[in-house]
Amino acid sequence: MSRIDGRTPQQLRPVTIERGWSKHAEGSVLVSFGDTKVLCTASVTEGVPRWRKGSGEGWVTAEYAMLPRATNTRGDRESVKGRIGGRTHEISRLIGRSLRAVIDYQALGENTIVLDCDVLQADGGTRTAAITGSYVALADAVAWARTKKLIKPSRKPLTGTVAAVSVGIVDGTPLLDLRYEEDVRADTDMNVVCTGDGRFVEVQGTAEAEPFARDELDALLDLATAGCTELAELQRKALDAPLER
Amino acid sequence: MSRIDGRTPQQLRPVTIERGWSKHAEGSVLVSFGDTKVLCTASVTEGVPRWRKGSGEGWVTAEYAMLPRATNTRGDRESVKGRIGGRTHEISRLIGRSLRAVIDYQALGENTIVLDCDVLQADGGTRTAAITGSYVALADAVAWARTKKLIKPSRKPLTGTVAAVSVGIVDGTPLLDLRYEEDVRADTDMNVVCTGDGRFVEVQGTAEAEPFARDELDALLDLATAGCTELAELQRKALDAPLER
Amino acid sequence: MSRIDGRTPQQLRPVTIERGWSKHAEGSVLVSFGDTKVLCTASVTEGVPRWRKGSGEGWVTAEYAMLPRATNTRGDRESVKGRIGGRTHEISRLIGRSLRAVIDYQALGENTIVLDCDVLQADGGTRTAAITGSYVALADAVAWARTKKLIKPSRKPLTGTVAAVSVGIVDGTPLLDLRYEEDVRADTDMNVVCTGDGRFVEVQGTAEAEPFARDELDALLDLATAGCTELAELQRKALDAPLER
Amino acid sequence: MSRIDGRTPQQLRPVTIERGWSKHAEGSVLVSFGDTKVLCTASVTEGVPRWRKGSGEGWVTAEYAMLPRATNTRGDRESVKGRIGGRTHEISRLIGRSLRAVIDYQALGENTIVLDCDVLQADGGTRTAAITGSYVALADAVAWARTKKLIKPSRKPLTGTVAAVSVGIVDGTPLLDLRYEEDVRADTDMNVVCTGDGRFVEVQGTAEAEPFARDELDALLDLATAGCTELAELQRKALDAPLER
Amino acid sequence: MSRIDGRTPQQLRPVTIERGWSKHAEGSVLVSFGDTKVLCTASVTEGVPRWRKGSGEGWVTAEYAMLPRATNTRGDRESVKGRIGGRTHEISRLIGRSLRAVIDYQALGENTIVLDCDVLQADGGTRTAAITGSYVALADAVAWARTKKLIKPSRKPLTGTVAAVSVGIVDGTPLLDLRYEEDVRADTDMNVVCTGDGRFVEVQGTAEAEPFARDELDALLDLATAGCTELAELQRKALDAPLER
Amino acid sequence: MSRIDGRTPQQLRPVTIERGWSKHAEGSVLVSFGDTKVLCTASVTEGVPRWRKGSGEGWVTAEYAMLPRATNTRGDRESVKGRIGGRTHEISRLIGRSLRAVIDYQALGENTIVLDCDVLQADGGTRTAAITGSYVALADAVAWARTKKLIKPSRKPLTGTVAAVSVGIVDGTPLLDLRYEEDVRADTDMNVVCTGDGRFVEVQGTAEAEPFARDELDALLDLATAGCTELAELQRKALDAPLER
Repeated sequence: MSRIDGRTPQQLRPVTIERGWSKHAEGSVLVSFGDTKVLCTASVTEGVPRWRKGSGEGWVTAEYAMLPRATNTRGDRESVKGRIGGRTHEISRLIGRSLRAVIDYQALGENTIVLDCDVLQADGGTRTAAITGSYVALADAVAWARTKKLIKPSRKPLTGTVAAVSVGIVDGTPLLDLRYEEDVRADTDMNVVCTGDGRFVEVQGTAEAEPFARDELDALLDLATAGCTELAELQRKALDAPLER
Repeated sequence: MSRIDGRTPQQLRPVTIERGWSKHAEGSVLVSFGDTKVLCTASVTEGVPRWRKGSGEGWVTAEYAMLPRATNTRGDRESVKGRIGGRTHEISRLIGRSLRAVIDYQALGENTIVLDCDVLQADGGTRTAAITGSYVALADAVAWARTKKLIKPSRKPLTGTVAAVSVGIVDGTPLLDLRYEEDVRADTDMNVVCTGDGRFVEVQGTAEAEPFARDELDALLDLATAGCTELAELQRKALDAPLER
Repeated sequence: MSRIDGRTPQQLRPVTIERGWSKHAEGSVLVSFGDTKVLCTASVTEGVPRWRKGSGEGWVTAEYAMLPRATNTRGDRESVKGRIGGRTHEISRLIGRSLRAVIDYQALGENTIVLDCDVLQADGGTRTAAITGSYVALADAVAWARTKKLIKPSRKPLTGTVAAVSVGIVDGTPLLDLRYEEDVRADTDMNVVCTGDGRFVEVQGTAEAEPFARDELDALLDLATAGCTELAELQRKALDAPLER
Repeated sequence: MSRIDGRTPQQLRPVTIERGWSKHAEGSVLVSFGDTKVLCTASVTEGVPRWRKGSGEGWVTAEYAMLPRATNTRGDRESVKGRIGGRTHEISRLIGRSLRAVIDYQALGENTIVLDCDVLQADGGTRTAAITGSYVALADAVAWARTKKLIKPSRKPLTGTVAAVSVGIVDGTPLLDLRYEEDVRADTDMNVVCTGDGRFVEVQGTAEAEPFARDELDALLDLATAGCTELAELQRKALDAPLER
Repeated sequence: MSRIDGRTPQQLRPVTIERGWSKHAEGSVLVSFGDTKVLCTASVTEGVPRWRKGSGEGWVTAEYAMLPRATNTRGDRESVKGRIGGRTHEISRLIGRSLRAVIDYQALGENTIVLDCDVLQADGGTRTAAITGSYVALADAVAWARTKKLIKPSRKPLTGTVAAVSVGIVDGTPLLDLRYEEDVRADTDMNVVCTGDGRFVEVQGTAEAEPFARDELDALLDLATAGCTELAELQRKALDAPLER
Repeated sequence: MSRIDGRTPQQLRPVTIERGWSKHAEGSVLVSFGDTKVLCTASVTEGVPRWRKGSGEGWVTAEYAMLPRATNTRGDRESVKGRIGGRTHEISRLIGRSLRAVIDYQALGENTIVLDCDVLQADGGTRTAAITGSYVALADAVAWARTKKLIKPSRKPLTGTVAAVSVGIVDGTPLLDLRYEEDVRADTDMNVVCTGDGRFVEVQGTAEAEPFARDELDALLDLATAGCTELAELQRKALDAPLER
């Protein structure tokens, strides 16, 4: 089968991870998976939410949003509507949980890191790009906080790395990293979040048209695991480069 | 391992499905999974949302909510807060998608069925109980609509059955149908929605503490599939009984 | 005149008061006035709202709501609409005031009790059923708080009992405890809240069609007073039975 | 007993009804009951809300609000808070019902009249002043609509007059038309709305401290009926004067 | 050119400034510019918003709103809509900034003064009338606070006076103090806020139809400066009169 | 005087206008004034808001927002807060008015163009950058609509060009195009919007500390007019280049 952009079923789109995009944020990444572009900023503040005060533990959370014209048709702003939609809530929570899976709260100390993931342009896979980019922004923010002595030099708040990718079955073929045109045609759509050592943080599979069988699920998990391994390598390379602030 | 209520790891809690609970709704079920009790009502109205008018196709959607004191500690009402939380949004969307997976929109015709799932008492697994009970309420509502000729007698809007169950890994052991006390101690928590023929509609697994390996995921899927098969049988039995309105 | 369900004008519908309905709440009652069913839970928390701190006095408040399909036609959820309607506000305030009429704040000490009244099924008289059931839930919650030493054993926060009933004039005849079909046809509609010793806590009469004369008002008050006396007796009996938690 | 402003228990405060206060509204009245001042405007528009279209019947509704500094302490604006409080809802609904009690919807035809009652200065009895003033504004608006042929000259939409007054028991004495200082000290507080022919439209009595007995209720109703008769006479006099627009 | 009300282009409408309008507020003014009537109340409270605590400095802010029928057509209440519109926000901010321009925060001490400007009737220039009237209410509130020793007698929180007027170009002629009918026909519309010594606090000019040239801008500024000087004189006279509270 | 970045008082920051930034929008520009970066997208839809239907005239509007970490300290999202702040409202309205000043609604026909201006990074002058960039996005969107025959080839909806710049007095010296550090120190702050032929669309000057005199105002207007002329030239150059979509 030939994909619309000529990729093989097992192939990621071109992925770029541009660190230090923002002059203000403690960590910031403009991540792109093909035409999907997400700006991820990590903001560090001393202190934690009220329910966590005095625990000696930190907190990491995330907010996801789309610019109104990130998509083909303009969507109304959630600020104008006065309420956040279910999809936005769902994705923000997914990103937060994914990043917290590699955080040692004790090592972080009573500091809070907020990840803002704003989709500047969407072409499928915005939540997985957001997780993959946010991890890098988070790593830069943690490094900054250690420099500033907010985190003790002896502590390592990051217990691993985390990346995410979408997979789906289109016309009977399992495909990695769906573009929007593939996504809308998929029978099954799955988002998989893995740690760098190949274990699962989140598996979210949805039958869009037909329910899926166990062997299809297995094939998708294989594809996603391989994709996440590749993304973990790209994250590592990006973080190995020096960061000019 | 002995579970707090003496069940084996593969055992469901006592499940009851009480049809015709409400005198007003076209379909209504009080479902209980142990101490978790959810009132599921199905409301049929002629016509569809604006974006679907003239398509000849129907629509099915769901709203989930908890009574303030369904839980051990009282929660603020979302109506009083003036906004719906992320968790509520997420679960409402999951229930709606799950039910739509077994609906033939053409056969339903331009009718809308809204499932309201209100948790009267919570003890873990409220979303899976809601899906399992809602399917039965939906089936009753569809039958009602055929009687009333809103749906043509020759059409069958339901293409299958759907049920859901939670699974998780507690102290290294995969367990079926977690109670609240088990849920809070689980390392991994997964909700699985299956059709009656054993295929998957939704698979949502989350690492609460440690990321999980592929073999753990496999064990959980096995457990959930068996649980859903058992629930499908209970749904069938409930629907076989005559319904007095 | 013969009423639709065969009652005499002076007759209540069958009333049931099921205590201990919820495993979580400190007091809980499923009350039914015929087909009207309201779940009333009483939640006790130590401490009082900010404006009352340090006064040595407690607080009792109430929230009323209807499940979307409690009525014949589905109503939109107030949480989804993002705002609470006038009717809901009005009834919540009425229930709160009615219960506070029999509370000695000093004896309650700096504790707060919230009554949640959720209408599971509506057939007229939901607010009066809610008040009547809430009183019993409140009594159980107060007893619980004394057991837990939140309230000193020597103090009696309840200064009396309170119950409520609706009355109205239908086709020229004053009727007690209106069902929905009677309520919509009533010229005058009145809700009366009485203490167990026959005094008034609230009297709310509204001319739905024709303004009403003083003698009609007097007849309605007579009817309501007798109804409340009967309800007070039912409350007493319910509370006399042992409560298994 | 001597009242703080020297009135007898049966005496109203000085009442003024200033018609034609606003150059824009079809009817407008600045009503004062002593230091309580309420601006009541009646706005006429052709057409009715959607749920009433094609019925041939009109609609009358009301909105009540207080300026932030109408009271002794500044209150937050409900527009700033983003939600309307329970008290505001309750009073708006009361005013609307009271005015609709004297409206013949068929005679009004498919026109809508909105009464806006804005309290410029509060000293007790704002809702009763609002009802009393609104009736006059409504009468002027109806007259305007007849002049403009929105209402047929042969039809009389007003079937009577309506006025309202507060009564209460202070230190054991029933008093008419309470000022704020009296209101806060009252054991029982009642608002009564009467038609000009002495029948009741609304009776709302609340025990603020002690429950009240039937004879107390009777005494309050006597007092209120007499007060409303006096107010009806003042309304008549105000409407007899020519209105310069 | 002859203006609709016979004024010359350089002439203000009749301006009245009625102090002590409200019995509750620390300062209150009913200001009218022709048929535009705005009630301005100044509320003094000890203490400042959280972000200013401990600074030794006070705060002055303002809220502007229109009654629903202040205008020719009834507008929906912002409290009912649940949100404040852009125009309201913009004007509230303008009034607040204008008054703060003549406040010495140190001299005010940690006190807050809130100006509420409620438009009772609108005929153009409501924001400029609100600023002009608010200054007088603010001066009375400051005087009250000095009497009550909230402000030390040796400190003078007011560093000057402030007034505002609208100007615009209608049919090619620059006009002072536009009525509504003039405002809607204006090509350019400008609001100018000046201190009593003739300097500018705010200049807000907007091309409604055609962009405007520098010489037109200059002519409007001349007109506005003269108008503000006249208003400052009227403010001075109003404040020179004794205030009976 | 030497500015922090070495500019002369009359010098703009480096300005870049990157057209065709988004693959989805009909017009899109990433504009930067030094470190201030704003993404401006223009979305064209057939049809107009309800109040304009059947008029034959089009509509242009704008929405402005900041990403949470566009600034030095993270700001809460307005979507999360559930309401749009006054500053956001004010700027959105300013941008919309500025662009409408150069639109011929008849020539545009019944089409709507929405400009979304999202600040990705802020360093002073975000609203003026947004106006300057939006004009270019609007021009591209108009060109697109003519290609698609939504606008007749014979009609020219753009009657001119529009650009904006900030000016202010810092330490007594009038400066063009303030950076954030200059802005916070400015005594007077002015935003000026000009058409390409040197006339004014908006003049908004605010005394931040001291009121300003007429000669200071004149100096600022001179500076701004020259700055806008320079920006108009940069807009012209950007639009002269071919656009690859």
